[in-house]
Amino acid sequence: MAVKGIPGHRERQALATKAQVAAAARRLFAEQGYVATTIAAISAAAEIPAQTIYSAFGNKAAILGEISKTWMRDAETRRLSDDALTADDPIDRLRQTAHWHRRQFEAGYDVIVIYQEAARADPAMAEEMRRVWAAREHELTKYLAAFEGELKVTAERALDILLACTVPEAYRTLVIERGWSLDEYEVWLGDALIAQLL
Amino acid sequence: MAVKGIPGHRERQALATKAQVAAAARRLFAEQGYVATTIAAISAAAEIPAQTIYSAFGNKAAILGEISKTWMRDAETRRLSDDALTADDPIDRLRQTAHWHRRQFEAGYDVIVIYQEAARADPAMAEEMRRVWAAREHELTKYLAAFEGELKVTAERALDILLACTVPEAYRTLVIERGWSLDEYEVWLGDALIAQLL
Repeated sequence: MAVKGIPGHRERQALATKAQVAAAARRLFAEQGYVATTIAAISAAAEIPAQTIYSAFGNKAAILGEISKTWMRDAETRRLSDDALTADDPIDRLRQTAHWHRRQFEAGYDVIVIYQEAARADPAMAEEMRRVWAAREHELTKYLAAFEGELKVTAERALDILLACTVPEAYRTLVIERGWSLDEYEVWLGDALIAQLL
Repeated sequence: MAVKGIPGHRERQALATKAQVAAAARRLFAEQGYVATTIAAISAAAEIPAQTIYSAFGNKAAILGEISKTWMRDAETRRLSDDALTADDPIDRLRQTAHWHRRQFEAGYDVIVIYQEAARADPAMAEEMRRVWAAREHELTKYLAAFEGELKVTAERALDILLACTVPEAYRTLVIERGWSLDEYEVWLGDALIAQLL
């Protein structure tokens, strides 16, 4: 018998199935593309019947949503952005901002590429991506408000610079193409933000 | 009768036809995508018979090559990079580097987007784009050699940083999405390069 608040056997099994499907789909989306990957292919790779996948998710976009949730959990986005927000020293806050973004790329650069491809092919996914970016901008705006009086530029301009320095393509250039370590990327981003904002 | 070195009437007409086709194709590639645009559609938009386009270019990739040549001429890439190379003062050299990149984006950000889309769809275009990027890296490496002893990082690392700061997506974020003026972008890029390299 399931105890309240603790998932019972069937719930745990359902969660494990979803995780298994999401992991297989993530590999296929990255290798073959989001558009080219069918539910049938995910079913074969995950060794889960297609009907179970349809029941659990409904469609491919929902599987990508699950992949994204896993990514945010692995990247500890919430904890790291809270840490950055509550540090006393503005330099320390920007170093932690660099760390939080490094963790996002480290844990899910592949997911960003999948989203970018999906958004190009599917207007609904493009809309979803705009929603996610708008939410991110909203969070970053709140975050920058904690720097009041400590920035050498307006909060609006600081947001612009933060967005420009954290474009995935700069990460791709330095870490994936030019072979920088993740630590080197994090130091570079921290230095760039400190030089431009404080 | 044509005078040697000066294009005669038929040559001038042929060049004008090519320019007309390239201009129409550039609009269509940007609006509908490189992959989705047919030679027939370019023929209709340019008001030039399809057979003439095939004779002049052979294929779509050659039309994109012509668009690219026009872009480099409009952006004055050669003159501006030479100017940057020969300035005495390293700060001045980096300001001119920022100006040269601003002019490239100003004159042809649309062409970059067309190339990116074409490279995703067509392995031959992806190869062509790798070739262009490798040539650019080679030029930038030669250019950075002129800074010997003036940089606070190695020439190799300076190249990495220059490539990361000039990713088209940072330009897109600041100028297209966040509404910065081209002058503001140029000052930002110059400041960022000076802070990170000198």
